[in-house]
Amino acid sequence: MKVRLLLALLLSVFVGHPGFAQTNAPADDRKPASSNQPGKEYPKVNSEGRVKFRIAATNARVVGVSFRDSSAFTKGEDGAWYGHTRPLDDGFHYYTISMDGAEVPDPNSRMFFGAQRWGSAVEIPAKDEATYTLRNVPQGQLRELYFHSPSTATMRRAFVYTPPGYDQNPDKRYPVLYLQHGWGENEYGWGVQGRAREIMDNLIAENKTRPIIIVMIYGMTNETRMGGMRNFDIGPFETVLVKELIPFVDANFRTLADQPHRAMAGLSMGGMETRMITLRNLDTFSHIGIFSGGSIAVTNITDMAAFKAKNKLVFVSYGSKELGNNRGGNPKADADALKAAGINSHFYVSQDTAHEWQTWRRSLREFAPLLFKD
Amino acid sequence: MKVRLLLALLLSVFVGHPGFAQTNAPADDRKPASSNQPGKEYPKVNSEGRVKFRIAATNARVVGVSFRDSSAFTKGEDGAWYGHTRPLDDGFHYYTISMDGAEVPDPNSRMFFGAQRWGSAVEIPAKDEATYTLRNVPQGQLRELYFHSPSTATMRRAFVYTPPGYDQNPDKRYPVLYLQHGWGENEYGWGVQGRAREIMDNLIAENKTRPIIIVMIYGMTNETRMGGMRNFDIGPFETVLVKELIPFVDANFRTLADQPHRAMAGLSMGGMETRMITLRNLDTFSHIGIFSGGSIAVTNITDMAAFKAKNKLVFVSYGSKELGNNRGGNPKADADALKAAGINSHFYVSQDTAHEWQTWRRSLREFAPLLFKD
Repeated sequence: MKVRLLLALLLSVFVGHPGFAQTNAPADDRKPASSNQPGKEYPKVNSEGRVKFRIAATNARVVGVSFRDSSAFTKGEDGAWYGHTRPLDDGFHYYTISMDGAEVPDPNSRMFFGAQRWGSAVEIPAKDEATYTLRNVPQGQLRELYFHSPSTATMRRAFVYTPPGYDQNPDKRYPVLYLQHGWGENEYGWGVQGRAREIMDNLIAENKTRPIIIVMIYGMTNETRMGGMRNFDIGPFETVLVKELIPFVDANFRTLADQPHRAMAGLSMGGMETRMITLRNLDTFSHIGIFSGGSIAVTNITDMAAFKAKNKLVFVSYGSKELGNNRGGNPKADADALKAAGINSHFYVSQDTAHEWQTWRRSLREFAPLLFKD
Repeated sequence: MKVRLLLALLLSVFVGHPGFAQTNAPADDRKPASSNQPGKEYPKVNSEGRVKFRIAATNARVVGVSFRDSSAFTKGEDGAWYGHTRPLDDGFHYYTISMDGAEVPDPNSRMFFGAQRWGSAVEIPAKDEATYTLRNVPQGQLRELYFHSPSTATMRRAFVYTPPGYDQNPDKRYPVLYLQHGWGENEYGWGVQGRAREIMDNLIAENKTRPIIIVMIYGMTNETRMGGMRNFDIGPFETVLVKELIPFVDANFRTLADQPHRAMAGLSMGGMETRMITLRNLDTFSHIGIFSGGSIAVTNITDMAAFKAKNKLVFVSYGSKELGNNRGGNPKADADALKAAGINSHFYVSQDTAHEWQTWRRSLREFAPLLFKD
């Protein structure tokens, strides 16, 4: 079941979701995507969420893009190739340009890590984008640092979000959320395309969540070659996270260093990791968030009395467009059953989004206000 | 001039890499470049500093790389294209892959911002690389944050390096270095390919420099389209740096917020900016670093008595391979004249490097120990 769930998650990344009905002519109100390199006009996005590309490849014979149901690319009068997508969902999508048999990043796009590589992606504007874009509100910091991991004999990168006011209040201590990316992604995901910093700064500015520290690290222990999921063993990563990272963070940041003030959450594979690690470490984590990564059934809990005493929140979320594909059980029914068993169980569905970052941005936005309500 | 340039190029090939003169075939001791994407075997670098590329572009007709004097790319038995460079200088080099008329990033390379785009680059191992690579020593942090700039009506990104111990010593205050990138680059440069964090952590671990805060921002005010240099006006950036960033940093970090503890340095265009801004703001900056970006002649100083009273260091550096090309005068003679005039003047030449990051990494390594010797 574990393998089937992950297979479904992985497929949904690449196959995507049902498109809208195509109109004859794309709306002619295109604007440069916010994900473009500085000064680049293309890719451009119109009000339908269609993306138009321009690829300067004068002598290429075939040019295309990895979004399914895209138009054929044709050569313009300027010698460049042009093509456009179907209407895409709001939010962030990885893609690749194909050119005479090569798969290359679009030189016009900024580069993001996902699908196991630094490559191109496009941002489709959304009605709720003010919740995850930079605003002139009190700002947190995203700190890049390294810690030594004896179990892997490596220096490992961590990103630590410290909330607004952290440096100005040297006596204040904060709860901590350990937040994981998905398969094929890395520790940059939440801080870059996930917009975790902007989401938190904006929530805090609106007094919708308390200031918390967020810690993000790579969720596997195979830096040189990203492993498959078939033989995935949670053990090595659990050791890094629980035995090495948490003590490091508690020693180097002003944390509330106890179980009631420590949460873990993750998306997709990171959600699966969250479920496995939190269920095995009830004395370490009190709040659990699983975004598009399965759910916790009553039958997953071996000692319900202990779980009820120690757990303060189980939050599960999905995008509405991926829910029907979920072969990992019925997450809504699992959430309801947990609630009936007396757990503080929340279930959230992101409307009209699939197994993509827009679902996870919204999940963080909904999850954070539920944390550490003491 | 052309003859001298040619001589320099020949020297860079035959003197810098003796292995090339001794054999016709590239040495067969290639290793994956440290600048590669995770798990990618190519580009590979051999002991001569030659880089071999593999580009999976089965149906392409012509493939090449932007390094001059590279071999022609040929198709291997696996259908991919292979080619290699001449021996390159130690250190970091931007490049682009050409494919049937398109200029694209190498999908195998991590992405770096330079030459006005996020694109590929390759790292050639160097004898002194231990000075700028990650080691298990006390670690500083590289903090990404935003500040509001009224003069440009934008939120602007800054990277702030805080030295090891910054969070552990809440009563300690630190001097500050404002450090600028070159034209075509941005505020990521020093923290990523510049290795500023690693250089400082390693120097501090060896007790070769005092702990300082380093602040890095984008050195122009035209985010949407990088401007040319012809009509460059230092005014808008000077306002952002001096009137907005410095007060922000002094309010939000534990700085020694006075002229004796504030330095500015930069590379190439950033060196030119440093010269212009520091000479106009003697009461703001006491220490000056100009890396491959000109020098300060005695005649540039309008009031030598005031300069001598206020300035504590003028550091000028170049790569040995770019010195002959310097159209900005004679930087060594300028440095000598400053010294004769009683200024604490230092001139440094990075051996066997050109107008590239290896020169600037070494320049920071030499500059930092001279800072704030009070």
